[in-house]
Amino acid sequence: MNFDYTESQRYWIDRIQTFTNNEIIPALTRYHEEDRAGERFKALPVVDELKAKARAQGLWNLFMPPQSGHEPVDDTFVWEGQTLTNLDYAPLAEIMGKLPYAGEVFNCSAPDTGNMEVLMRYGTREQKDAWLRPLMEGTMRSAFLMTEPGVASSDARNIQTSIRREGDEYVITGRKWWSSGAAHPRCKIFILMGKSSPDEAPYRQQSMILVPSDTQGVTIKRMLPVFGYDHGPHGGHAEIILDNVRVPATNMLLGEGRGFEIAQGRLGPGRIHHAMRSIGVAEAALEAMARRLPTRSTFGEVLSRQSLWENRIAEARIDIEMARLLCLKAAYMMDTVGNKIAKAEIAMIKVAAPRVALKVLDDAIQAHGGAGVSEDFGLAEMWATSRMLRIADGPDEVHMRQIARMEFGKYAEAAE
Amino acid sequence: MNFDYTESQRYWIDRIQTFTNNEIIPALTRYHEEDRAGERFKALPVVDELKAKARAQGLWNLFMPPQSGHEPVDDTFVWEGQTLTNLDYAPLAEIMGKLPYAGEVFNCSAPDTGNMEVLMRYGTREQKDAWLRPLMEGTMRSAFLMTEPGVASSDARNIQTSIRREGDEYVITGRKWWSSGAAHPRCKIFILMGKSSPDEAPYRQQSMILVPSDTQGVTIKRMLPVFGYDHGPHGGHAEIILDNVRVPATNMLLGEGRGFEIAQGRLGPGRIHHAMRSIGVAEAALEAMARRLPTRSTFGEVLSRQSLWENRIAEARIDIEMARLLCLKAAYMMDTVGNKIAKAEIAMIKVAAPRVALKVLDDAIQAHGGAGVSEDFGLAEMWATSRMLRIADGPDEVHMRQIARMEFGKYAEAAE
Amino acid sequence: MNFDYTESQRYWIDRIQTFTNNEIIPALTRYHEEDRAGERFKALPVVDELKAKARAQGLWNLFMPPQSGHEPVDDTFVWEGQTLTNLDYAPLAEIMGKLPYAGEVFNCSAPDTGNMEVLMRYGTREQKDAWLRPLMEGTMRSAFLMTEPGVASSDARNIQTSIRREGDEYVITGRKWWSSGAAHPRCKIFILMGKSSPDEAPYRQQSMILVPSDTQGVTIKRMLPVFGYDHGPHGGHAEIILDNVRVPATNMLLGEGRGFEIAQGRLGPGRIHHAMRSIGVAEAALEAMARRLPTRSTFGEVLSRQSLWENRIAEARIDIEMARLLCLKAAYMMDTVGNKIAKAEIAMIKVAAPRVALKVLDDAIQAHGGAGVSEDFGLAEMWATSRMLRIADGPDEVHMRQIARMEFGKYAEAAE
Amino acid sequence: MNFDYTESQRYWIDRIQTFTNNEIIPALTRYHEEDRAGERFKALPVVDELKAKARAQGLWNLFMPPQSGHEPVDDTFVWEGQTLTNLDYAPLAEIMGKLPYAGEVFNCSAPDTGNMEVLMRYGTREQKDAWLRPLMEGTMRSAFLMTEPGVASSDARNIQTSIRREGDEYVITGRKWWSSGAAHPRCKIFILMGKSSPDEAPYRQQSMILVPSDTQGVTIKRMLPVFGYDHGPHGGHAEIILDNVRVPATNMLLGEGRGFEIAQGRLGPGRIHHAMRSIGVAEAALEAMARRLPTRSTFGEVLSRQSLWENRIAEARIDIEMARLLCLKAAYMMDTVGNKIAKAEIAMIKVAAPRVALKVLDDAIQAHGGAGVSEDFGLAEMWATSRMLRIADGPDEVHMRQIARMEFGKYAEAAE
Repeated sequence: MNFDYTESQRYWIDRIQTFTNNEIIPALTRYHEEDRAGERFKALPVVDELKAKARAQGLWNLFMPPQSGHEPVDDTFVWEGQTLTNLDYAPLAEIMGKLPYAGEVFNCSAPDTGNMEVLMRYGTREQKDAWLRPLMEGTMRSAFLMTEPGVASSDARNIQTSIRREGDEYVITGRKWWSSGAAHPRCKIFILMGKSSPDEAPYRQQSMILVPSDTQGVTIKRMLPVFGYDHGPHGGHAEIILDNVRVPATNMLLGEGRGFEIAQGRLGPGRIHHAMRSIGVAEAALEAMARRLPTRSTFGEVLSRQSLWENRIAEARIDIEMARLLCLKAAYMMDTVGNKIAKAEIAMIKVAAPRVALKVLDDAIQAHGGAGVSEDFGLAEMWATSRMLRIADGPDEVHMRQIARMEFGKYAEAAE
Repeated sequence: MNFDYTESQRYWIDRIQTFTNNEIIPALTRYHEEDRAGERFKALPVVDELKAKARAQGLWNLFMPPQSGHEPVDDTFVWEGQTLTNLDYAPLAEIMGKLPYAGEVFNCSAPDTGNMEVLMRYGTREQKDAWLRPLMEGTMRSAFLMTEPGVASSDARNIQTSIRREGDEYVITGRKWWSSGAAHPRCKIFILMGKSSPDEAPYRQQSMILVPSDTQGVTIKRMLPVFGYDHGPHGGHAEIILDNVRVPATNMLLGEGRGFEIAQGRLGPGRIHHAMRSIGVAEAALEAMARRLPTRSTFGEVLSRQSLWENRIAEARIDIEMARLLCLKAAYMMDTVGNKIAKAEIAMIKVAAPRVALKVLDDAIQAHGGAGVSEDFGLAEMWATSRMLRIADGPDEVHMRQIARMEFGKYAEAAE
Repeated sequence: MNFDYTESQRYWIDRIQTFTNNEIIPALTRYHEEDRAGERFKALPVVDELKAKARAQGLWNLFMPPQSGHEPVDDTFVWEGQTLTNLDYAPLAEIMGKLPYAGEVFNCSAPDTGNMEVLMRYGTREQKDAWLRPLMEGTMRSAFLMTEPGVASSDARNIQTSIRREGDEYVITGRKWWSSGAAHPRCKIFILMGKSSPDEAPYRQQSMILVPSDTQGVTIKRMLPVFGYDHGPHGGHAEIILDNVRVPATNMLLGEGRGFEIAQGRLGPGRIHHAMRSIGVAEAALEAMARRLPTRSTFGEVLSRQSLWENRIAEARIDIEMARLLCLKAAYMMDTVGNKIAKAEIAMIKVAAPRVALKVLDDAIQAHGGAGVSEDFGLAEMWATSRMLRIADGPDEVHMRQIARMEFGKYAEAAE
Repeated sequence: MNFDYTESQRYWIDRIQTFTNNEIIPALTRYHEEDRAGERFKALPVVDELKAKARAQGLWNLFMPPQSGHEPVDDTFVWEGQTLTNLDYAPLAEIMGKLPYAGEVFNCSAPDTGNMEVLMRYGTREQKDAWLRPLMEGTMRSAFLMTEPGVASSDARNIQTSIRREGDEYVITGRKWWSSGAAHPRCKIFILMGKSSPDEAPYRQQSMILVPSDTQGVTIKRMLPVFGYDHGPHGGHAEIILDNVRVPATNMLLGEGRGFEIAQGRLGPGRIHHAMRSIGVAEAALEAMARRLPTRSTFGEVLSRQSLWENRIAEARIDIEMARLLCLKAAYMMDTVGNKIAKAEIAMIKVAAPRVALKVLDDAIQAHGGAGVSEDFGLAEMWATSRMLRIADGPDEVHMRQIARMEFGKYAEAAE
């Protein structure tokens, strides 16, 4: 047991923090200006420039783990970027989480990261060449079409979109929403989860399949706001109609009926990436609050000397420390014993991290008064995004249930 | 002690609820369409039509209490509409709170209501004729310029905007923000709080003065979003620069140095109106949740049968019942013993009501999954508005302090 | 709607408060001395003396409502004492709740009150003469044998104790616990709930029957502590073995299979009495805290001036105000529309009142430091008793479920 | 960074767990019987027997760290037992925390551990031979006289007990309470904190001095209950009068005016030991709950299948995991960078660990119904002890303030 950052972690923290300080933070004003100008869903020149710089410095694709010996590696597919463990990546994702667009600069932003992992692990060589390569080069973006408006799709068995084989093609019909990034002009590929095999066992009925975004029958019906934010530069959140969409049979991932298996594999890393970033969000909120309070006084006493605010600051520090440790432990376990055995820890931090972020953000908003709910400090938007994380990739309730079932399982032989 | 609605309450509840059901709810789609079309800040035809209908039926200006014998009544100023007690008005405000625009239909929307009360109580006959009459006729709107960006303006002594006498004029210079409604094209008058008498005692330095919105030197610098929402149809929330703005000396309200006194008088009713509406918001959220849960299932069980959700529903019901009773009691006390003696109860419900609304809304959002954070059920926007209420008209911390000081005061002779 | 105490309420509040101030509070030291001396379970002379005084002044049996027209009245049974409505009684119970033994002084202490209501409503004239009369004269005490150690007896259908008819007798076998008051030397009668009719519908299988405490086969196995307290002067909480206990068939209450019906009738008033007292407990804790904080300083500032403590004091005041109003409304409804229609409100305050008391007590304990967890201010013991109330007469979970089912029921036709 | 237990940790966990399973748990019934028999404050034969066994196996004095290079080591004082790091000791203390008397068996129980550390670090050779040796041999016990009834002694400057030099003696007068263990018949030595130097700087006025418990003028005034528990076998919590108590000048520790310095050194380890044990308490409560819930059903569904209980179980698991990691990190930092630099982490876990224990215990109590508040599962007593920990060794408020001051300090140059 050792709670110090390793040399490797410190090396990468230093590099990412330095790049962030020197390049990303100074560009923040330009980012907001470009965001506000013109179309809502677009690639920002400032991001493209920063991506080029980061890539040139080897700060690229840091999220892709060395697969830790638990999965067969396709070593014929050579790609550019770093191969860091989850433990090495965690503090980097935390740094990226503090800013609204840093993840994209390092080609480490959702949902692409999760989709790249799927393609890396489960894709054929042809699928990799066609879709994974441009994603890892940062020239293309992607979306993940899982959630459906009509059902509680946190229970995968509820999914309704149909994938039907017809000759050399699959025909897809259904409705998806919360397809993040789908409106980005560079978003060219969707990974879609649907029901292909209704007669199989409940968790063998689903498949995942690749759907190019410009296929006939694909329509973006509308973009969904999150508490009034459209998340424009990230490509927003789309509701998508799929009406008899036809794709080649070779677009199937891994095989019919294996969608649930892929989802399990994909969601682990995706969830912990969000958690890592949430720790960064919470730190950013705590820092904002700790900087703000000494500048305001009421009734003759500066706020930072009022015990109510001292208490909130201390709560924030304690909660962040604990959540970060759990997040790092989950990452460590993913590296050492694999995502499957780490599933309890992943579920725990999936729930715990956004909760901490929301709590600290709420106090930070209150500390900023009217400025807190406005755009001036980014706190309100961070809150909205964090609130979405209690629902995205499975709502809290589903993860809590899973954690509890494992806990009861420890004594099951005796009791049930 | 009697917990039944009175005959008068039941009469008005029935009339407002009937009008809401028959006229306002059916127009909701049109409201949203008109909101989305064209300019962001504008008068909506649908609202104008409904206002005309409501006024024709005598459902107009319901918020204006009969001044309950505690203030001298100016009975020379005759106005159109009903004179209801706070207790009679409370359940009506609750009904209005469930919809985003019902208050305006009955000419009962903030900040006009508070401003009209100020003019009614403290205005001269000339000020009333010029500004109160069109406000009560619903042809004009108004804003209240209190909060400032640079200081904790919840402590009125911190206010910086200067009001300086020069001959027959006052010259006003400063910066205000969170001036709600100021961008509405019909917003013609501001009530501004500033510092006129820096040499007086701390609570005698402030004055309130009337500033026509088109006076030279008044500039709307920008509109402030609330969690991504601009509150367009209500006229948004403005940051306003006042640069040597000159108004006639007759625009002073009540007299130099009496601004704090007016603020105390104004904020009591304003706060309880927000509280009443918050009860309605919480009821709307509970209803949405109770309707949603039976329609979704996970892991083989409908959500409304899962004890976690039962528990949340019951929490919501308990919290709403308790908050409503406290709100009604505060209204009752305002009617019977006056706003000043009711200040503890007003402070309590100012804090308690938005808190209940936020709690129920958060659960309702979670119950709706992705639909909850989007625009589909209005829950996210209601949450954002309710969150602002923990800051507007004095942040929670200031009210909690006031309540505590009164509590300690009960034993003060013995202890301090 | 009227939130002022009525003349009748004020009259009784004044009388009970005066008696409490003049007689009960001065005797507190003597009460604790007699409690500590000799046997643990005993009648205290100080209580007997105070009872005689209270009875002589007509402050007696205040809890027994006039049955509000909803139940047939047995007007042949004349008894001594006052007939107050639940609304009149509520503030009196609140006053009694502030002291550990005031309820008994006025012959208004649990579980006797609930048992007397059962006998009054459902007892035959013979049962009344034998058991109700001495209870109402304060010369006898009683216990209610409902809960069982082996099952979740909050679901009445789980009850296992058998009541079997044999000729002119019933034979009772089973095990009960949390039979409060059973070890009091004057406890002569038990009302026992058992299963008599296993072949009937689920809620028609239970009966209630009178069991004299000295019947052969009745054994007190042990006394149960509550967080280390034995509640000695109240007769403690017993675990009782019933081994082929035989009672005359005339001891049956109301009729075989009607136990659930009686339980519903008994528990409503019992629950609200506990709630009323809990409001008093919370007020006592708030007062203790508000008196303590100005007497202690840390880091150069008196605690009552520290915003963290101001916030806790204000939270306590808000929560108490809201809970009291809900409690009074529930009492009002019991008086006006009957216990059955008031069941939602009764369930709500059953949950809400002890929760408020626990919260305020926890803060008050913290405010008192080491003195808070000790015996010096009675806070720890009040906490323990209040904690028990979240379990007694049905745990919170059962009441929350009931409240939720009613809430879903409002929309049931549409959704389920 | 490495989250696996080290080989050393696993070795000691295995040994302590094995001894606990084989020796301590089987003796639990005997422990409770001996506890209940005879005097309240006494040495239990069962504990003496187990101590002998543990000592014979080298499971002894495990709490005493190797002083980690940060303090000069007195290597002339040879003692029996293991020298484990805080990190090695933490999981052992967690195991001990699950049972009410395991700590004493391994000679690792408070307050002796803290007192032994004080003597080891700051005692002279003579003081060590006289008092430290029998403490480390387990033949003597000790108490720590810090807290005073009349002031908020969490602020050390408030301490009133006077230590006055007279010739070769010090004369001590004052009143202390919450002197844990003082009534144990083997408690022979007190470490007392008092004010010796009222004219020095605020944190140089206090001294610590050794007071044999049988010195003339020392009187135990009374024993203090904790929520009704007297903590008999541990020697209870005493209120002690010191009336002109005279001790040799050589009993002074470290030197006049250095009491605050020693307190800082003592309280770090003491606080983390309590925290470690609190993690064990929380685990014990979670296990009890997870074993109980599958055995009870309400309304046709076993409790462990009800989502409300699933949620509580999962909350408990998450909170425990996070608190344990923070506790281990604090221990690691104490080992690697010293207690002083680890003070933020120590303060955090001092607050966080009892809070988690209380939360899990409260849910576990609710899950056990009446059995939860009684003596049957030990949950209520564990709750009471954990509640005391939010006050002992400095109340939460003091630690939160300290954490906040450090947080603000990070940005202090910029802001204040």
